[in-house]
Amino acid sequence: MGLNGKDLIVDGWFHERGVLWPGQAMSLKVTKVLDHFQSDFQDILVFESESHGTVLVLDGVIQVSERDEFSYQEMIAHIPLFAHPNPKKVLVIGGGDGGVLREVARHVGVEEIVECEIDEGVIIASKKYLPTLAKGYDDPRVTVQIMDGAKFLADNQDSFDVIITDSSDPVGPASVLFETPFYNSMYKSLREGGIVCTQGECMWLHLDLIKPLMDSIRQTYSSVEYAYTTLPTYPSGQIGFILATKGRTTCKVPERKPDETIQQELKYYTPQLHQAAFVLPAFCQRAIYGTL
Amino acid sequence: MGLNGKDLIVDGWFHERGVLWPGQAMSLKVTKVLDHFQSDFQDILVFESESHGTVLVLDGVIQVSERDEFSYQEMIAHIPLFAHPNPKKVLVIGGGDGGVLREVARHVGVEEIVECEIDEGVIIASKKYLPTLAKGYDDPRVTVQIMDGAKFLADNQDSFDVIITDSSDPVGPASVLFETPFYNSMYKSLREGGIVCTQGECMWLHLDLIKPLMDSIRQTYSSVEYAYTTLPTYPSGQIGFILATKGRTTCKVPERKPDETIQQELKYYTPQLHQAAFVLPAFCQRAIYGTL
Repeated sequence: MGLNGKDLIVDGWFHERGVLWPGQAMSLKVTKVLDHFQSDFQDILVFESESHGTVLVLDGVIQVSERDEFSYQEMIAHIPLFAHPNPKKVLVIGGGDGGVLREVARHVGVEEIVECEIDEGVIIASKKYLPTLAKGYDDPRVTVQIMDGAKFLADNQDSFDVIITDSSDPVGPASVLFETPFYNSMYKSLREGGIVCTQGECMWLHLDLIKPLMDSIRQTYSSVEYAYTTLPTYPSGQIGFILATKGRTTCKVPERKPDETIQQELKYYTPQLHQAAFVLPAFCQRAIYGTL
Repeated sequence: MGLNGKDLIVDGWFHERGVLWPGQAMSLKVTKVLDHFQSDFQDILVFESESHGTVLVLDGVIQVSERDEFSYQEMIAHIPLFAHPNPKKVLVIGGGDGGVLREVARHVGVEEIVECEIDEGVIIASKKYLPTLAKGYDDPRVTVQIMDGAKFLADNQDSFDVIITDSSDPVGPASVLFETPFYNSMYKSLREGGIVCTQGECMWLHLDLIKPLMDSIRQTYSSVEYAYTTLPTYPSGQIGFILATKGRTTCKVPERKPDETIQQELKYYTPQLHQAAFVLPAFCQRAIYGTL
């Protein structure tokens, strides 16, 4: 079972202590608890912080803060989308807050965006408390499936140009999303030339999870690469992405660029940063690729 | 006055709460306080953490953890040193723990390394509790000056190929190191073609400090650029560096590369990462350079 978010608030500070990052914690000063309830799947806490705006917490783990969420949403969406020359159909698994949808919708060439979220509670909380993320649902190309991502994939083979898995950590409902069978299912749901981009945990904490998963899925995918972005409210301040392709040699180089209007709206992604995000520190490069 | 480090340990956790990052805090679980004393300049705390090895804290702010210190030391040293084709004489201001010296000493072409630290207490603490950093003092090319960096600069003009300022935050004894007069003094102490690299705070927190300082020193230096590295135990998980040159157009491209033996010893720096470290997120690029 996940942690009860409210139990982590002590003396007015939320302390993010978790089994995946023992001995360390990010803390945020809470000015007001906005909501706290149990959905069918997890513990959902929303609070107003002194420094980082509204914060969404699932099973005791920070998912979104208004102050830095753009780094995550922009990078997990625009790296695979700009690495694809012509994405038409995009699937988002997880990401119930709507932030990834908001970024996908910036791509005018995309014709269909399917959101598959297992927990409607997250969508409800985001629409109520995080309107700058939930506005992603307003785009007319978006359809929503409240269901298990693996089940949806099984029913939709050879269908998507880009699949983005915006999941919580591999504890609780999301743990299956970090396993090889789920990646095999995503592969079958990709069209030729398609790209998968998943939340890939933190290089400073979780190389023992990241490396075996990447090694395993290399047997299926044409290319498997790791990129990362900086994100102060995630454990150790960074989060990575696993980029895997069907019939494509790399995602490191953008095939397209944001036009000037869209680039002006973006706060994190640039085409130069797209490429830099794949340049890993020596310890991480060695662990993942076995060589410098 | 700086904070008393021991006051920040509550229920066995050290909480890094500071005026420069209100509303947020990094916390580490303490297994044992190794030492706590007041030097002539600041409050010095050394503790053993559950997850990050030995941790050095000055005036309540984490300076070094054994687990991630290599990211900081390697990047603040090797970016300016590899950007210089032939550095012979190197000055380190601050950096009393010795970690930067350790990295500078990897460059066989360097003939003289001067360490100028105002607070001998830091050196004493590091030699006692952080031997893997303090071993930097063992190199025969190192000489130590216990004195104010500004004073040392005034007495040593036109002397150094690279000056590295490894300082604490601009509160307390180090605040003068974030001001234009100090940068003017460093400029005068550089030889032609020389490079300054300073601890440049965090792009997620301190653009209001970083931008005016960089704008101001552009009037003196030939080039002024910003790079960053990831560092989980620093506020928001990142730290930046200001790179400024005397008669050189950029530090973005390495002029030399580590040979194979040295590269194998490095845990963070690679020549590719050297260049990637200057590729900034859009919000930071806009703030610092005014354009994308």
